[in-house]
Amino acid sequence: MGHILVIYDSKTGNTETMAEQVAAGAREIPGLEVRLRHVDTATADDALWADGIACGTPTYVGLASWKMKKYWDDIAHTVWGKMDGKIGCAFSTSGGWGGGAELTCMSILTMLMNVGMLTFGVTDYTGKQFTLHYGAVTAGKPREEKEIEAPRRLGKRLAQWVAVYVDRRDDMRPGPMKART
Amino acid sequence: MGHILVIYDSKTGNTETMAEQVAAGAREIPGLEVRLRHVDTATADDALWADGIACGTPTYVGLASWKMKKYWDDIAHTVWGKMDGKIGCAFSTSGGWGGGAELTCMSILTMLMNVGMLTFGVTDYTGKQFTLHYGAVTAGKPREEKEIEAPRRLGKRLAQWVAVYVDRRDDMRPGPMKART
Amino acid sequence: MGHILVIYDSKTGNTETMAEQVAAGAREIPGLEVRLRHVDTATADDALWADGIACGTPTYVGLASWKMKKYWDDIAHTVWGKMDGKIGCAFSTSGGWGGGAELTCMSILTMLMNVGMLTFGVTDYTGKQFTLHYGAVTAGKPREEKEIEAPRRLGKRLAQWVAVYVDRRDDMRPGPMKART
Amino acid sequence: MGHILVIYDSKTGNTETMAEQVAAGAREIPGLEVRLRHVDTATADDALWADGIACGTPTYVGLASWKMKKYWDDIAHTVWGKMDGKIGCAFSTSGGWGGGAELTCMSILTMLMNVGMLTFGVTDYTGKQFTLHYGAVTAGKPREEKEIEAPRRLGKRLAQWVAVYVDRRDDMRPGPMKART
Repeated sequence: MGHILVIYDSKTGNTETMAEQVAAGAREIPGLEVRLRHVDTATADDALWADGIACGTPTYVGLASWKMKKYWDDIAHTVWGKMDGKIGCAFSTSGGWGGGAELTCMSILTMLMNVGMLTFGVTDYTGKQFTLHYGAVTAGKPREEKEIEAPRRLGKRLAQWVAVYVDRRDDMRPGPMKART
Repeated sequence: MGHILVIYDSKTGNTETMAEQVAAGAREIPGLEVRLRHVDTATADDALWADGIACGTPTYVGLASWKMKKYWDDIAHTVWGKMDGKIGCAFSTSGGWGGGAELTCMSILTMLMNVGMLTFGVTDYTGKQFTLHYGAVTAGKPREEKEIEAPRRLGKRLAQWVAVYVDRRDDMRPGPMKART
Repeated sequence: MGHILVIYDSKTGNTETMAEQVAAGAREIPGLEVRLRHVDTATADDALWADGIACGTPTYVGLASWKMKKYWDDIAHTVWGKMDGKIGCAFSTSGGWGGGAELTCMSILTMLMNVGMLTFGVTDYTGKQFTLHYGAVTAGKPREEKEIEAPRRLGKRLAQWVAVYVDRRDDMRPGPMKART
Repeated sequence: MGHILVIYDSKTGNTETMAEQVAAGAREIPGLEVRLRHVDTATADDALWADGIACGTPTYVGLASWKMKKYWDDIAHTVWGKMDGKIGCAFSTSGGWGGGAELTCMSILTMLMNVGMLTFGVTDYTGKQFTLHYGAVTAGKPREEKEIEAPRRLGKRLAQWVAVYVDRRDDMRPGPMKART
């Protein structure tokens, strides 16, 4: 039974809203355990427990927040050599479009790759001109359906890859992707 | 008299629309010469002529288009050692928000830094939840005022930095920045 | 039986040397088919055929070469929606340390993620102060043992992840990682 | 009289060694004031005081250290709108080549661009197959001449751009670049 960790930092509550949607999306795939953790309470054991990790933070000066950075800096030596082959993805909320949310997602994926994880984005579009190729992003609080669906889809896809690759459940493979509209 | 090059690739016309706005913004600063070039007709001399370069392409698989890549690959040896200290910035249009436009801007800035240029983004917000911290980006054609203002502001800021730093016109220094709304 | 594609661009032969080592490393894992393709002869079918792809190019202005960029730009629409969940990694040779080889690997991983692939680096060190956390990199031709081992390890790890995740061969899971020395 | 800030984090002393070389390089250009600050003692006033900033940290999971991230996260609102047009660059020491030092430099440049700074790398080679296109990098402590010269050259170039652009001293413009060997 695969384990999904959704770990996040949030100041205004926007990234927390996304994290909840990521967790909800992951729960759409039956037979997995989903753990939602604010970075303040997360431990190295949470990372070790997980088969798949969705990691999200607000966009601060174009990168993951210092608290999330500290989490990975602090646990890197503890978990080193034990994260290889786990599956990971990213999400972020920024103050504005063009403000660095994509770069923040890439900074998160950089950390996850550093410890040996397989990282991914999602090709689907969740609405008109809206996608999550490098992780789910919004400017401010997710409000529109496509903005709420993006983190949900991210969590679902993470759960699907864990189900297919770790738990070897072929029936959980994602179906045909929804193209750009 | 400072020289501004706006060089772009465009397939659907969306990035061309942005390029025209970048050029229009640059022309708001008097006393500079502005040259607008599609990548198909640009030469090494265009890059050498310029004091400031705004470079834009559609977002293709998260990076600058191959045509723009080929332009810089081809001229790199010719211009090497002659671009140091010039000023540069980026813009991109993508198929959707979250589709890689910020990453495309960063790939462009990577090329410009490689040849020794000073690269920048713009801190201002051009409307609600809309900025250009790493270059001007839109999903699809720029339509809303804030989407049209972003590339215009980019071009203006490039022209301002060239006026201030290359032409030494202190009166052209940008005024107080417009904060997030 | 899993399929591994090693696709590369090379001008001086340095990246070709790495590509051959990546392919040799992949062949260390029995029961997989390995295909080595120069970008000039690669087709969309090569990408579709593969379960795992190692993609390498020389470092040109800090990014993948325009030829490799053109390959992915050209096939992106053809393969779109059919690459999700495949596994990918990167390698690059540059003119000098600090010259952009890591950034080139990240640009390659950006392309692979864009089409939905799971991307990874390798945590192992292949010698003193030498690793491949974001893909195998060298300055110039790989000559020292640790430089030759890095692309070899990359190919082997790619083959291991394909064997474990796609072919479901648990015995192929990589053993304990070799730490920094 | 231009102001240069060298701000760094260091755990083992390796990045501190680089920081000292960066400061020494900056001091090669007469008529500038150079301030060297460990991140633990740096304040927002240091950033505001500076015309040019060289920022360095160890490579931790492929990005700037959490302490340096916290510094910029904490001061971002205080300095916002007052950093535009300042000039910046990066340096990092990692545990091994291929371990993320270039990516760490790019993460630093991302932060500096976010607050409006003009960022650059150096095109020169400081020895055989050794350069600093996106900032000065080493694996472990800088020992060889080319490794010591790289951060020194970075600091000197930063001082040159500040002298030329901020202090308007044309005679300080860098001479012909030293090409790859």
